[in-house]
Amino acid sequence: MITKNQIKLINSLAQKKYRKQHGLFIVQGEKNVVELFSSNFEIHQVFATESFLAKYPAELSTTHFVAASPEELAKAGTFSTNNTVIALVKTRQLALPENNLNELVLALDGVSDPGNLGTLIRLADWYGIKQIVASEDCADVYNPKVISATMGSFCRVEVVNTDLAAYLSQQTVPVYGAFLEGENIYQTTLSSQGVIVLGSESHGIRDEVSSFISHKITIPSFGQAESLNVAMAGAIILDNFKRA
Amino acid sequence: MITKNQIKLINSLAQKKYRKQHGLFIVQGEKNVVELFSSNFEIHQVFATESFLAKYPAELSTTHFVAASPEELAKAGTFSTNNTVIALVKTRQLALPENNLNELVLALDGVSDPGNLGTLIRLADWYGIKQIVASEDCADVYNPKVISATMGSFCRVEVVNTDLAAYLSQQTVPVYGAFLEGENIYQTTLSSQGVIVLGSESHGIRDEVSSFISHKITIPSFGQAESLNVAMAGAIILDNFKRA
Repeated sequence: MITKNQIKLINSLAQKKYRKQHGLFIVQGEKNVVELFSSNFEIHQVFATESFLAKYPAELSTTHFVAASPEELAKAGTFSTNNTVIALVKTRQLALPENNLNELVLALDGVSDPGNLGTLIRLADWYGIKQIVASEDCADVYNPKVISATMGSFCRVEVVNTDLAAYLSQQTVPVYGAFLEGENIYQTTLSSQGVIVLGSESHGIRDEVSSFISHKITIPSFGQAESLNVAMAGAIILDNFKRA
Repeated sequence: MITKNQIKLINSLAQKKYRKQHGLFIVQGEKNVVELFSSNFEIHQVFATESFLAKYPAELSTTHFVAASPEELAKAGTFSTNNTVIALVKTRQLALPENNLNELVLALDGVSDPGNLGTLIRLADWYGIKQIVASEDCADVYNPKVISATMGSFCRVEVVNTDLAAYLSQQTVPVYGAFLEGENIYQTTLSSQGVIVLGSESHGIRDEVSSFISHKITIPSFGQAESLNVAMAGAIILDNFKRA
């Protein structure tokens, strides 16, 4: 059974303030929680049905486990469709990627929609990008909607918030940025090393950030839509980098 | 002022049943409504602020216009952030695309999430695809969440619901389908004519539909994510077709 105090704690972790205060975030649903077991995140506590425990006895053997009914779980979490498992997990402080890494790093400037951030983390994972550098005003990676949209990829992709302009000013590798009027990405030489910057859907890449961009790139349009959302643009751009 | 009966009508149009009954759907927000003005949709009525009227006098000259306050608009619509304009628009009955068109047609099998459908319509518009054929259980194109996610592209891309297997059985052009285990899309000859089928995120393309697919294609993975969501996959696949 989930106690009143535990429900209060779980509910509070929907807010960034309390995630910071407790150093915890919530992971909901079988797919996301199972990915946790093989990650280096530290699980604080798991609330789950007995049948979930029966399915993952080894993984849960060292975990503080609380048995709960599907109804309790649906009520305690932020997603009413999740009635299997909620994990409380310790947040972590990550260091920025080393400067001028010999691989691709994704950088996000003001991507504030949690669904978009989560989708971009999943995409990064698909394309083998292990590190995302995000401006301070991006959505919080520990937001339940972000975690949910990653479909488990939050376990493999590190997201660090920082002053993006300051980070980019340290890079001597190519810094690519997505603009509506840049060089046709199909005709651009795309390096396997460097930073790819995506801006917010409403404002694009900020001036203070764009001054550090060495290659402005654009996805050619064949129709009349004015723009693509940032997750779509990210998907297409990463595919162009990797297929090259 | 928006009357009680008008609010009741607007609210009811969030549901498919009432959209069907009234033959109307709602379009909210400046961007989407302005796109309507240059489309061949028939506007039934517009509720908007006086300043919206002042901005688009010519476009609204022949329209049944009701002045409303921002508060009224935010309350009447399904998006509390929209306090500028709500249009009631007549739904339309579209014919299926001709068989074996000399261009690309997008086909969707069971894409039930409105955000994904709206995003795919926007993507189709970006890549110059004018027609989408959708299985009967896809999200309704007139759902307010779909319209919103299209960012105006619903005005340029025609979506027709039909029995997808029956439609595909009529095609002699290539029928491509996205599968997790198909031919590497980078190495596939992609025609400028044919049908591209995307399945639902949870179940993929149904067996009855997949039997009509002549080319199974796959987006190569470079990392560990198990899958991409259908809108992401659509973005990458359309880009591969068009860049070819």
